[in-house]
Amino acid sequence: MHVIADFCLIPLGIGVSVSKEIAACERVLAEAGLKTRLHAYGTNIEGEWDDVFAAIKRCHAVVHSMGAPRISSTLRFGTRTDRLQTMEDKIRSVEQKLG
Amino acid sequence: MHVIADFCLIPLGIGVSVSKEIAACERVLAEAGLKTRLHAYGTNIEGEWDDVFAAIKRCHAVVHSMGAPRISSTLRFGTRTDRLQTMEDKIRSVEQKLG
Amino acid sequence: MHVIADFCLIPLGIGVSVSKEIAACERVLAEAGLKTRLHAYGTNIEGEWDDVFAAIKRCHAVVHSMGAPRISSTLRFGTRTDRLQTMEDKIRSVEQKLG
Amino acid sequence: MHVIADFCLIPLGIGVSVSKEIAACERVLAEAGLKTRLHAYGTNIEGEWDDVFAAIKRCHAVVHSMGAPRISSTLRFGTRTDRLQTMEDKIRSVEQKLG
Repeated sequence: MHVIADFCLIPLGIGVSVSKEIAACERVLAEAGLKTRLHAYGTNIEGEWDDVFAAIKRCHAVVHSMGAPRISSTLRFGTRTDRLQTMEDKIRSVEQKLG
Repeated sequence: MHVIADFCLIPLGIGVSVSKEIAACERVLAEAGLKTRLHAYGTNIEGEWDDVFAAIKRCHAVVHSMGAPRISSTLRFGTRTDRLQTMEDKIRSVEQKLG
Repeated sequence: MHVIADFCLIPLGIGVSVSKEIAACERVLAEAGLKTRLHAYGTNIEGEWDDVFAAIKRCHAVVHSMGAPRISSTLRFGTRTDRLQTMEDKIRSVEQKLG
Repeated sequence: MHVIADFCLIPLGIGVSVSKEIAACERVLAEAGLKTRLHAYGTNIEGEWDDVFAAIKRCHAVVHSMGAPRISSTLRFGTRTDRLQTMEDKIRSVEQKLG
């Protein structure tokens, strides 16, 4: 099952700056061979379901190992059976409507 | 890794009524032996990481098999290494502050 | 415009315990006269759009005033024009399908 | 109060293709003079709190007027009092850690 997701991880108990932990997650996702795109409030991820969710689990493990005692994440994730759709397809279909 | 999550699944392409699909997800989560609590905009889920995410994957598979060509879900999920916390603990700690 | 929402506020930079701040938000929502229901990963809120969003803004202001330098919140919110639906209606329609 | 948000609107009851409605929202946000950036699972928005939330309300009104009887949206939104941070700042601080 192919999935497009949007992941935002928030470490708690380590202060207001969390960019080091987010960067560590970007590395985890890249090492997993997933297609990703960082934006200002999360990261788009595309891949096979099991690969995507294994990488997200690893993000939590890595950020805990960096010293964060608590993590609260949010995820949007979409699947479809009517056709294969990539992250670029989703953006392009909106931009075409914008002319 | 113990996780407390909050899951909201939205089937697309089947009209405005989605309660049949949500009920099917409740059954999937119950059959997985997970602790759950339905609310007005999702379902709290508590359990071991792999069990929780396997059940969520099965929800997508089941709702697709019911005829929904597209699904968009959202999930909040939290882990902590400082102490074990249950769903009831989380609610109780807020209610104690409310006096 | 009537709205049913689900609100989860996370204060950053104040440590791992956030229940005092969540309790303050519950008070803000109650004082606004909104119908609410606390669960283990957020709070259901029902009311008129402007009332709901004014109260959420006040939650951010109050939690900042309590000392949190950074807040990251998530919100699900739904509106419909086909019929009026309450939080109880949403839960009941799923429970009826569960038999 | 300055806010950085991430908005994802899902119209229900109009079939699987929703790009026309998303494009209409992009226009609403642009007309409101907000800084935005479309990604594969939502749109980053930056601006003053009241402007951002007025535009989001207008997105719901416009998408209903296009024929969608039901809408379910998700929003992440962050505020901070310690310093002003832009969408570009957030991305840059992660990319610097990535080296």
